[in-house]
Amino acid sequence: MKELYDAIRTIPDFPKKGVLFRDITPLIRDRQLFSKTIELFAKHVPEKTTKIVAIESRGFIFGGALACKTNTGFVPIRKFGKLPCKTIQHTYSLEYGQDTIEIPADSFEQDEEVVLIDDVLATGGTASAACSVIESAGAKVRKILFLVELKDLKGREKISRYDIYSIITL
Amino acid sequence: MKELYDAIRTIPDFPKKGVLFRDITPLIRDRQLFSKTIELFAKHVPEKTTKIVAIESRGFIFGGALACKTNTGFVPIRKFGKLPCKTIQHTYSLEYGQDTIEIPADSFEQDEEVVLIDDVLATGGTASAACSVIESAGAKVRKILFLVELKDLKGREKISRYDIYSIITL
Repeated sequence: MKELYDAIRTIPDFPKKGVLFRDITPLIRDRQLFSKTIELFAKHVPEKTTKIVAIESRGFIFGGALACKTNTGFVPIRKFGKLPCKTIQHTYSLEYGQDTIEIPADSFEQDEEVVLIDDVLATGGTASAACSVIESAGAKVRKILFLVELKDLKGREKISRYDIYSIITL
Repeated sequence: MKELYDAIRTIPDFPKKGVLFRDITPLIRDRQLFSKTIELFAKHVPEKTTKIVAIESRGFIFGGALACKTNTGFVPIRKFGKLPCKTIQHTYSLEYGQDTIEIPADSFEQDEEVVLIDDVLATGGTASAACSVIESAGAKVRKILFLVELKDLKGREKISRYDIYSIITL
C-alpha cells in the first residue's frame, strides 16, 4: 500500500483555506498503480454483485474500471440536473448549504446487489445520500469502496451500517 | 452494433429546447453491453499507447474502464477550477459564451502516445480543446474514441487531422 500512499499528493488550502486536498492524479496516471488499485478493489466486490454504482465525477474513473474488471454493469450517481431521465433524488446538508444527488430511477432490478465506490471518504454525507438513492431505486448496497478515507472527519460513522473498505486511511 | 444502438435512449429538449439528448445510462448499466463497448474501444487503442485521457465526466466512465482493460494509465481533463495542481488550460467558444478545460501539467513524459476518449462527439469544440491541452502537455494524440458521433453537427471536421473511431454514428 505504501506505493499507493506515496502517489497521493497533498495540496494545502484547496479548494479553500484550511482544506488539505488529496490529489489522486499522480496515482491514476501510473499504469501499474492504477491497475493495482483496481485489483485491490476487485478483491472486495462480493460474488453476487451485478452493478457498480459510482459518484460523479472522480468516482466514475474507479467505478468504470471496476465494472470492466468484474464484468458488472455501471450506474452513475450525478449532481442535480445532469441526468435527462426519470430520477430518484436525495438532498443532504453540507457544511454550508445543501446538495442534491440523483440516480436514474430504472437503474436496478428489485433487490439487485451492488457496490458503491468513490475516491475519498470525507464527512460521509455524499456516501450516505448515495446509499439512500440506491436503496430507493430498489437495490441493496453490499459494500462501499474508497481509495482514501480521511479518518479525522469520521465519515465512517455516517455509513456504519454498511460494509466499508478503504485502501488508504489518512 | 445494433444492440448498442438500441440501448441509447433519445430524450427531446434536454438540457434545453431543441436538443436531442443521447442518454447512455441504459447501455452502461447492462454488463454485457458495457463489456462489449470497452472491448470495441480496446481494439482501437494503438499498441504503443501508454495513457488514456478522458473528458469529464461521462468520459471518465469509459476512460477508466479502457485504461483498466488495456493496462494503461489514466489522465483526466476537467472543467476549470477542479484540479488542485499546476495545469495547462485551453479556453474555447461555445454556442453561447465560452468554456475552459484543464489537464494536470505533469501528466506526460515527452512524446508519450495517448488515446483521447469521450462519450459523445457533438460540435467537436471540447475534443479539439482537449487535443490542444494534451499536446501542450507534451504528448501525442494517436487516436480519438467516441461511443456516439452526431454526424449532423460535423464535429469530425474540427478534429480532422486526428485518427477518429466512433462506435455508433447517429
